[in-house]
Amino acid sequence: MSQAFVPEFPATEAPTMEWDAWGVAESRRHLSPQITTLLQQALGVSAEQSPPPTEADAIVRETALGTPLVHALEDLLGPDNVRTDTATRLRHAGGKSTPDLLRRKSTGEQDAPDAVLLPGSHDEVLALLRFCAAEGIAVVPFGGGTSVVGGVDPARGRFGSVVALDLRRLDALVDLDPVSGVATLQAGATGPQAEQLLGEHGFSLGHFPQSFQFATIGGFAATRSSGQASAGYGRFDDMVEWLRVATPAGTLDLGRGPASAAGPDLRELFVGSEGTLGIITEVGLRVHPVPEHTAYQAWSFPDFETGAAALRTVVQSGSAPTVMRLSDEAETGINLAMSGDIGGDSPTSGCLAITTFEGTDAHVRARYAEATALLAAAGGTALGEGPAQSWEHGRFDAPYLRDALLNAGAIAETLETATRWSNLANLRTSVTKALTESLAAQGTPALVMCHISHTYQTGASLYFTVVCAQAADPLSQWAAAKRAAGDAIIAAGGTITHHHAVGRDHRPWMESEVGALGTQVLRAVKDAIDPAGILNPGKLIP
Amino acid sequence: MSQAFVPEFPATEAPTMEWDAWGVAESRRHLSPQITTLLQQALGVSAEQSPPPTEADAIVRETALGTPLVHALEDLLGPDNVRTDTATRLRHAGGKSTPDLLRRKSTGEQDAPDAVLLPGSHDEVLALLRFCAAEGIAVVPFGGGTSVVGGVDPARGRFGSVVALDLRRLDALVDLDPVSGVATLQAGATGPQAEQLLGEHGFSLGHFPQSFQFATIGGFAATRSSGQASAGYGRFDDMVEWLRVATPAGTLDLGRGPASAAGPDLRELFVGSEGTLGIITEVGLRVHPVPEHTAYQAWSFPDFETGAAALRTVVQSGSAPTVMRLSDEAETGINLAMSGDIGGDSPTSGCLAITTFEGTDAHVRARYAEATALLAAAGGTALGEGPAQSWEHGRFDAPYLRDALLNAGAIAETLETATRWSNLANLRTSVTKALTESLAAQGTPALVMCHISHTYQTGASLYFTVVCAQAADPLSQWAAAKRAAGDAIIAAGGTITHHHAVGRDHRPWMESEVGALGTQVLRAVKDAIDPAGILNPGKLIP
Repeated sequence: MSQAFVPEFPATEAPTMEWDAWGVAESRRHLSPQITTLLQQALGVSAEQSPPPTEADAIVRETALGTPLVHALEDLLGPDNVRTDTATRLRHAGGKSTPDLLRRKSTGEQDAPDAVLLPGSHDEVLALLRFCAAEGIAVVPFGGGTSVVGGVDPARGRFGSVVALDLRRLDALVDLDPVSGVATLQAGATGPQAEQLLGEHGFSLGHFPQSFQFATIGGFAATRSSGQASAGYGRFDDMVEWLRVATPAGTLDLGRGPASAAGPDLRELFVGSEGTLGIITEVGLRVHPVPEHTAYQAWSFPDFETGAAALRTVVQSGSAPTVMRLSDEAETGINLAMSGDIGGDSPTSGCLAITTFEGTDAHVRARYAEATALLAAAGGTALGEGPAQSWEHGRFDAPYLRDALLNAGAIAETLETATRWSNLANLRTSVTKALTESLAAQGTPALVMCHISHTYQTGASLYFTVVCAQAADPLSQWAAAKRAAGDAIIAAGGTITHHHAVGRDHRPWMESEVGALGTQVLRAVKDAIDPAGILNPGKLIP
Repeated sequence: MSQAFVPEFPATEAPTMEWDAWGVAESRRHLSPQITTLLQQALGVSAEQSPPPTEADAIVRETALGTPLVHALEDLLGPDNVRTDTATRLRHAGGKSTPDLLRRKSTGEQDAPDAVLLPGSHDEVLALLRFCAAEGIAVVPFGGGTSVVGGVDPARGRFGSVVALDLRRLDALVDLDPVSGVATLQAGATGPQAEQLLGEHGFSLGHFPQSFQFATIGGFAATRSSGQASAGYGRFDDMVEWLRVATPAGTLDLGRGPASAAGPDLRELFVGSEGTLGIITEVGLRVHPVPEHTAYQAWSFPDFETGAAALRTVVQSGSAPTVMRLSDEAETGINLAMSGDIGGDSPTSGCLAITTFEGTDAHVRARYAEATALLAAAGGTALGEGPAQSWEHGRFDAPYLRDALLNAGAIAETLETATRWSNLANLRTSVTKALTESLAAQGTPALVMCHISHTYQTGASLYFTVVCAQAADPLSQWAAAKRAAGDAIIAAGGTITHHHAVGRDHRPWMESEVGALGTQVLRAVKDAIDPAGILNPGKLIP
């Protein structure tokens, strides 16, 4: 049993991600010559492109905001908090999906918000929303800019201009109730900032999605984020006790924790609203003491179906570990090849599963014993701590690796869904088939890997990673594959997104999720609080 | 360790409750002469009223539905399924709060729905909603009629007539997915019917609120019911995977289990909508195998604060029992006196707590050990199984006892709220004070008891029971006390209802819960799907 995992924090100040890649330059990954050769031989990947434009070369759309409007915004927020310089605009030009980065690497004109606004209080957000509604300026809440579904695209809708809202100045721990385990955080705090603020008081949120290092509390809430420890601490939406939302029609304070029967839960309308119904400025969150202990155990299962059934047994017992995940055969093999650990602790075939257990010593011991007995009885072979700790150590690296693959001439993209346990195999087969066939038909045979990263009593998520060579037009190449996968997900009874949210990219499938009448309900809510329609146009609501 | 608790089911056919009392006549309770004497001496209760009207004497408002409308409804549903007889109308005349029963016992005219409709399918519900919207007839979904907040009052709103919807014909188990643990039940199935249908396949819902024997699946969902085993199986809203709702604008199928990030969770708008936004006709529910084992342990704590802190420690450990509850000093003492168990197993002072643990043998043993260690360390004295099993045995009896007290000239009513752990003592003191002072000022000193019956990581519910002598006008007497308690709850930061819902009685406090803008959002949703406003007028939405 080891000491609790403490994430490595960057400095207190939140870093800004690179304009044309995930994350920060210091963490950039490079592919080994062996991997490059393997990609070339197995998938026909070759990096014979002209080099992408540097920031100095990038052609950025000119701001459409005239000087009078900029001055009026400066009057509201202060001159330092209205940014129209190209560097800032370019860093708020969109999210970090593979298509986003492909567009960023193109030589054409880069779209960008006409200004980036940095409000310093809830009231300033209210004021700027009223101003933008009156002037007809679209507003895109930027969060940490980690969207992989086009959620922070600078779309103008029917308006002539668009501003991005960056809440980085709202990064405080407003209140901590240690008895109840409830912390109130401002929406602009990033994952590491939140953990640092809470950690000073001995608490943790326990929300570690892959976007953790850059994404914000407000963004987690607005997109129904789900972290890698969701089996233990729940999805982010489970953690939200209440939220404060600024809208063009005023302020909403929603959530009557710990539980209430006072009508519909309006909190659940704004959690997941992706900036289309309001700007979340403060969130009350369930937190827990920093765990005293963490136990790790990795497992090997002969195949994915056996492994999935084993995970199901554990979660349905009501005693899930803190983290519980399972890679399929392809992902297990590739991860092994990437880590260069062949001949080490890891299995050379079958499927790798990871479990971790956090809490007090007694709690960890009891849970570990219960889960271990169930997983062994369900056909698992214990592999020890090693592979589980390795997974934890590298768990925020994948987007950097994606960028390295992209630069090497590959497409490496992910998509995810969820369904009931009884439908999991069917959904996995359908989506794999759709991706494989679509990309093969385009002359770029793909490697499709899958893992389960979030388990529930009634079902689980499926997370797919696709790697193939870039075709001549990689944007349309991926668009076709993504369309095939989305259609397959809906046809097979999955949800179009388990934790990536809807944004622009999943919007075509929203009506399949909620129906025509559900769409009408969403529009009615939006009309009631954003009658001008300035809030994140073109996202989420069909 | 005992065998699992299996609720005693009535016959497969759901019984209809008495028109002027809770439940069925066979289960009626009578007070012992000692209790009657005690009530008289301690609270000045005396039963010197004229006897209430019998059913034959009751004066029932005439039906306002003319023959052509009745015939049109008969064409839609079949002649047997449109009831205008007095007996049926009287049995759908409202819920079962103390004010409801006081009105039922009055000699004035009894209000009642103009007809009781028994649709046999979702499509019939759709058709009758369209008909009622076109004809301007208010529609009250009746569920099992167990509301204690005026939720099923035959209110007409701006319409001339009102019908009650009784979904008793929709009582089937539509589908069971044993692998995923998801059952689809029609909304009219009662608690015992649902358990019986599931039990035949080895499954259980595990939802046992005090209304269990008569309330329906649709009603549980529409009111955010919470059962006595909520610590183990969650609130009813936690169990809802998806629901089908019939509205005047069409059908909604909501919920993309097990989890989704596809926007706002519209399911959470209709769960808790209390018939104001649509009629729930089918619900997909998380179920679990009938537990193999149940362990019981009762505890005594020196005082309520110590006991509450102990429960908090257990639930915050992440390992809650299936049931965990704590009575305050007053309730502990009164229950002891009522049970006649003085000198038996139960403690004669302090506070009684109950824990039960359900599941597999290994799960029960592990959880029992973990909780027992925590409760003992937090100052609890273990009392053994006896008092916990006694509680379970009598757990559906309280409403019958309330009726006996009412007939003896007492008011015995309950109300409930919830708040964070750090605010629990303050809320309990405030509400107790408000009730005590209001009733004392009216010349009827009251006994106010309290228990915690639902615990969460961040807080708990408080359930108050009030007993006092009936004043000359008991309806206004209780209305004043209830108003004082509701105002105290909101002022002290509680929710106006933890699991009784809003109905008519809590509606004055709804705007305090969701704010003016939240109210506007609710109205916008209602206007979008019920533009005529026929659905349960006067309830929930201010």
